[in-house]
Amino acid sequence: MAPTLYQKEMPGNQNSWDTLLPDFPEGPLSRYRKKASFNWKEMAVFIDGEDIIQLKNRIFSALENDPLFAHQPGEDMCREKYQELTFLRCKRFFEYGFLTQQEMMESPLRCYNMVLCLGMYDWSPCLQFILHCAVFAGPVMSVSERFPHILKQTYNMEIFGCFALTELSHGTNTKAIRTTATFDPSTQEFVINTPDFEAAKFWAGNMGKHATHAVLFAQLYTPDGKCQGIHSFIVQIRDTKTLLPMPGVMVGDIGKKIGQNGLDNGFAMFHNVRIPKENILNIAGDVTAEGKYSSSVKDDKERFSAALGSLSTGRIMITGLSMTNLKLALAIAIRFSAARRQFGPTEDEEVPVLEYQTQQWRLLPYLAAAYVLDYFSKSLLENFVEFFAGVLTKQRSQRQADLGREIHALSAASKPLASWTAQQAAQECREACGGHGYLAMNRLGEIRNDNDPNCTYEGDNNVLLQQTSNYLMSWMNCIKDKAPFESPLGTINFLQDYHHILGWKFTAISVKDCMDSSVPLAAYKWLVCYLLRESDRKMNKEKQAGLSDFDAKNNCQVYYCRSLALAFIEHTALQRYHDFTHQPSVPAALQPVLRNLSALYGLWSLSKHLAVLYQGGYASGEQPGKLIQNAILELCYRLKDDAVALVDVFAPSDFILNSPIGKANGELYKNMWGEILQGNKTLNRPSWWAEFCINKPAIGRLRSRL
Amino acid sequence: MAPTLYQKEMPGNQNSWDTLLPDFPEGPLSRYRKKASFNWKEMAVFIDGEDIIQLKNRIFSALENDPLFAHQPGEDMCREKYQELTFLRCKRFFEYGFLTQQEMMESPLRCYNMVLCLGMYDWSPCLQFILHCAVFAGPVMSVSERFPHILKQTYNMEIFGCFALTELSHGTNTKAIRTTATFDPSTQEFVINTPDFEAAKFWAGNMGKHATHAVLFAQLYTPDGKCQGIHSFIVQIRDTKTLLPMPGVMVGDIGKKIGQNGLDNGFAMFHNVRIPKENILNIAGDVTAEGKYSSSVKDDKERFSAALGSLSTGRIMITGLSMTNLKLALAIAIRFSAARRQFGPTEDEEVPVLEYQTQQWRLLPYLAAAYVLDYFSKSLLENFVEFFAGVLTKQRSQRQADLGREIHALSAASKPLASWTAQQAAQECREACGGHGYLAMNRLGEIRNDNDPNCTYEGDNNVLLQQTSNYLMSWMNCIKDKAPFESPLGTINFLQDYHHILGWKFTAISVKDCMDSSVPLAAYKWLVCYLLRESDRKMNKEKQAGLSDFDAKNNCQVYYCRSLALAFIEHTALQRYHDFTHQPSVPAALQPVLRNLSALYGLWSLSKHLAVLYQGGYASGEQPGKLIQNAILELCYRLKDDAVALVDVFAPSDFILNSPIGKANGELYKNMWGEILQGNKTLNRPSWWAEFCINKPAIGRLRSRL
Repeated sequence: MAPTLYQKEMPGNQNSWDTLLPDFPEGPLSRYRKKASFNWKEMAVFIDGEDIIQLKNRIFSALENDPLFAHQPGEDMCREKYQELTFLRCKRFFEYGFLTQQEMMESPLRCYNMVLCLGMYDWSPCLQFILHCAVFAGPVMSVSERFPHILKQTYNMEIFGCFALTELSHGTNTKAIRTTATFDPSTQEFVINTPDFEAAKFWAGNMGKHATHAVLFAQLYTPDGKCQGIHSFIVQIRDTKTLLPMPGVMVGDIGKKIGQNGLDNGFAMFHNVRIPKENILNIAGDVTAEGKYSSSVKDDKERFSAALGSLSTGRIMITGLSMTNLKLALAIAIRFSAARRQFGPTEDEEVPVLEYQTQQWRLLPYLAAAYVLDYFSKSLLENFVEFFAGVLTKQRSQRQADLGREIHALSAASKPLASWTAQQAAQECREACGGHGYLAMNRLGEIRNDNDPNCTYEGDNNVLLQQTSNYLMSWMNCIKDKAPFESPLGTINFLQDYHHILGWKFTAISVKDCMDSSVPLAAYKWLVCYLLRESDRKMNKEKQAGLSDFDAKNNCQVYYCRSLALAFIEHTALQRYHDFTHQPSVPAALQPVLRNLSALYGLWSLSKHLAVLYQGGYASGEQPGKLIQNAILELCYRLKDDAVALVDVFAPSDFILNSPIGKANGELYKNMWGEILQGNKTLNRPSWWAEFCINKPAIGRLRSRL
Repeated sequence: MAPTLYQKEMPGNQNSWDTLLPDFPEGPLSRYRKKASFNWKEMAVFIDGEDIIQLKNRIFSALENDPLFAHQPGEDMCREKYQELTFLRCKRFFEYGFLTQQEMMESPLRCYNMVLCLGMYDWSPCLQFILHCAVFAGPVMSVSERFPHILKQTYNMEIFGCFALTELSHGTNTKAIRTTATFDPSTQEFVINTPDFEAAKFWAGNMGKHATHAVLFAQLYTPDGKCQGIHSFIVQIRDTKTLLPMPGVMVGDIGKKIGQNGLDNGFAMFHNVRIPKENILNIAGDVTAEGKYSSSVKDDKERFSAALGSLSTGRIMITGLSMTNLKLALAIAIRFSAARRQFGPTEDEEVPVLEYQTQQWRLLPYLAAAYVLDYFSKSLLENFVEFFAGVLTKQRSQRQADLGREIHALSAASKPLASWTAQQAAQECREACGGHGYLAMNRLGEIRNDNDPNCTYEGDNNVLLQQTSNYLMSWMNCIKDKAPFESPLGTINFLQDYHHILGWKFTAISVKDCMDSSVPLAAYKWLVCYLLRESDRKMNKEKQAGLSDFDAKNNCQVYYCRSLALAFIEHTALQRYHDFTHQPSVPAALQPVLRNLSALYGLWSLSKHLAVLYQGGYASGEQPGKLIQNAILELCYRLKDDAVALVDVFAPSDFILNSPIGKANGELYKNMWGEILQGNKTLNRPSWWAEFCINKPAIGRLRSRL
């Protein structure tokens, strides 16, 4: 794929950049800003384009100027209040209508950016909004001819939607959910039942307090008593005039979570709840008036491909959510590191902690990851848009089917890679900011806690990776037969050279050689081929030993298929970024830093697989390991003076970032004091002072109770 | 060192075990409990001894039976209320007096266990208690002849103490703090001042709301205007009759943190606050009535060793806190994994997720870590007790000085190893429990959030590791001179064979060979020697290139000194556990499982250094890597049926563990429902329902504002 992202508009000039992107205030960070090798505004315009920057500015300033979105420093908001505020904020999004329906349809990239901008402010109202507008409305829209009224009500917020698949005892294994929808021909209705409390719908976002309607998944039973498998239905769960539960529905809030507490995740149980026959979302099948089941899609393969592709929407979105968290955490930690001084060569002079090699090594590879994976997530979105256009136009080509499978394999691994990278980065950023990183006001805890579910929902990361390795393993026959093959996006095309690549060796002989991402890229190609071969051998061995397919597959995950899927997705992301940064159309002033980022991400990611490179004979002797390590440190050193400018490119406004130590002015301590002194009763004597001053403990009084 | 821990009492018999440790209820976990290879009660008695088990039982049941400690499921407690409750609970600890002063002095291990038991319930009151009784009282006690009244008031809770060292702009570099204490001979007082707000004392636990007195660190200035360096003073900051700040003191709460929110961390600024001359803690020095400075300790070396040793108290305690968090997280995740079923070989039968290799590999190495590092932390405590006895009896031997240095080197690395292991385990456990792990009620978030500061306080982990590598590097001269050497605890004695060890190779040729921890132990010895050699070479190279000591040291951390310190502490922990599990005195029935744990921890930790083993030539070819990986998976498989019993050994009572999915009965869903339905307004319509039902948004109304 020739990447076309980032290049749709002319980069403009200094004047136009200054209008879009005002200068930062002078202060402790100015020193680094002046040392940067590039103009951060040029970079921002190159990456986002003027159009997206304007959209961001519009959203950020609308929220900043609206008292409903005001931060409440020092206030200890209870969960109930936070849920209320989240709902009001979500409602306000409808009033702003940052993008019209038309604009969203025309530019999925703008829509994607809009969502991420709202999330940068706070994930709770953002997720509430997309759960309603996309996760609920999406499946309804896919059979829109039957539900124009529902869609209209959705967009006008006359109803409020949720998506109810997971049950208390079934998350990953969705096929085994146990809610039932039994067709009653006498009334032409489906009757929804929850067989027992373990089959209660559980976790559905928006269901806890607000949703009036659910896209509900249940096992369809025809009057002959036969189970026809999982289907989805539109079920009203609350009265739209009162928000009270519908008869037969027990619905409530599942309680406090580690994060995302503005969002109301809920549970629901159904007792003979009747819905009209029309409310089946007949994507997979339908019943006749007499109660006969008919599968609505004749072509299983087409249906499968369409289904796989649709699953990707959520995963691509989560890849983007994770990248956003990664950027927020880095903006905070890198600005902190550039302003915070500790120790120095003499007692009188302390140096910014960013000058320490250890601090660079802890943070800068994640900065590189933010650039590489952000590009990757947008390129995946572009791939998905192409695929989805095919779905909408009912493309039935082989290419369309293959594209669905390939995008499924990519998104099933990009979500794990992105969410784990963000998780680890948030933790590292927290620690790299020391105690100040542990203060809630500085937001690293919130970012980590809000990012966490990205590792879990839409498929547990470890389980999802199996989808990708299955896809890769499926090419082994072609490889063994030496038959020619390729995929629509070309991500597996290099496997055609499998036999040749397996003979490659690490050939760089100096750190200088390693300064380009072509070095890790070649190693990754070998790594994917090697892990593919080893996974295939292991699988065959397990099967030959008499294990069932189920057991054989389970025993091939650790060190084999799991590593394979991760290596493949890292390779794909790196390949795309390498190609992108080596295009002549990249402005000359930006090329060096972008290539450094590409090389750093490549080498750093690769270094986690270093043992395998040795194990499989790609590397041998002391040199390869040392070169890779020295190159990583050298690239960190080269990037340290660019780091502040690199986070300036993607950091949202101070109001949105909402972190005293992450503010653009770099005035760590002034910013923190301003916020601390807003604290609720910061300087007040505790109301329970008499518990110390008067009611003294009688030491050991209760010892006799022990 | 011949470990003597765990063997002070006879193991007893089934009858005595049953009295101490009641059976668990039958249920979903029974299947695994029956499959265990050992009797969990025998193991518990072997590890803790009857005495400690009785202490635990006493503490756990006292808290369970006291309404002040009742859990409040579903209640959304605000921070202020939580701080109040924490203080009341801390006060109640004084009334229980779980151990008398006498008992604590006689058995530091009981004292250590008492603290950890309180922490298992909730770290906030536990930390408040030890900050007052140990961190504040400790330095006062060290010069107790002068402050008997202060100590008496401390133990009676007539005053409440905190420890104030860190400032807003200085944490790690404590030498650079800027609070001043200027001696005024005219009044025989010290005058305490905070030069500016960046020098405000910051983070001190208990200071936010409660402390009346602080052990305060400041730069001592004599009347001649000379700075005599950091000294500590007892400073009253609040009136004991009113809890209002003393004149000239501005003191308050620093605000919400990521965790530990019952604890009141505070800040304080001082404006000409006068304290009597006697209030100097004359550990380092003192002033005469005329204002002349005199260092109180003549022997610098002795002072240095004593000071180093004392720093270890906190780090050894934090090692224990981290191990406790590790155990709590594992108890929850392993019981969940044994009861949670998902997928299976057929559609009708789902298997416990603990049966999946991936789940075993994610959790069981941490279970092994819990056993190995728990033993290590207790053995370190024993070493420290020996050292401290020497301090109390004013031992001036070379051995005492060497012991101080060695313990300092061990504790400076055991804290990072333990806190990071617990942090990573808490995250893995959270993810391994999927969505249910993300529900706050299941406590994994609290454990992760409360553990986090263990990576930061008492020295940032990365910075602390330098203390250990410095210690190791200090032996290079002896090594180069081939002079004989040894350390009091013998942890570095193997370095005498440095030259010989560097010639070692990986020699195991089958998975069976690797089933004993002697294999990773040998590899670790080589690894430490190799990293020592490489760190030394790197340091010399940097210095030869003209770098200052400061810069050279900074450039030798990543991949060198940092890895060295970690490898060394892993080796030490493993060596001690290996020796322990290979003693004939270990009951025969427990030996196999304990040795499996030892081997698993050793191989799994070692596998993170696998690339270095290859890089340095200890390993070559495919075999070593594969053997280690296969051995890890084989050990996970062997331990999976023991896993539930292994967590039963250390899990606290259900009341203390306070996690529906972690309860001993394994009834995940029943336990969760019980708690969910206690939730505040779980089933209620939101109070803001009219915001949906009546006040409809006017779609796009505010678009004109953008």
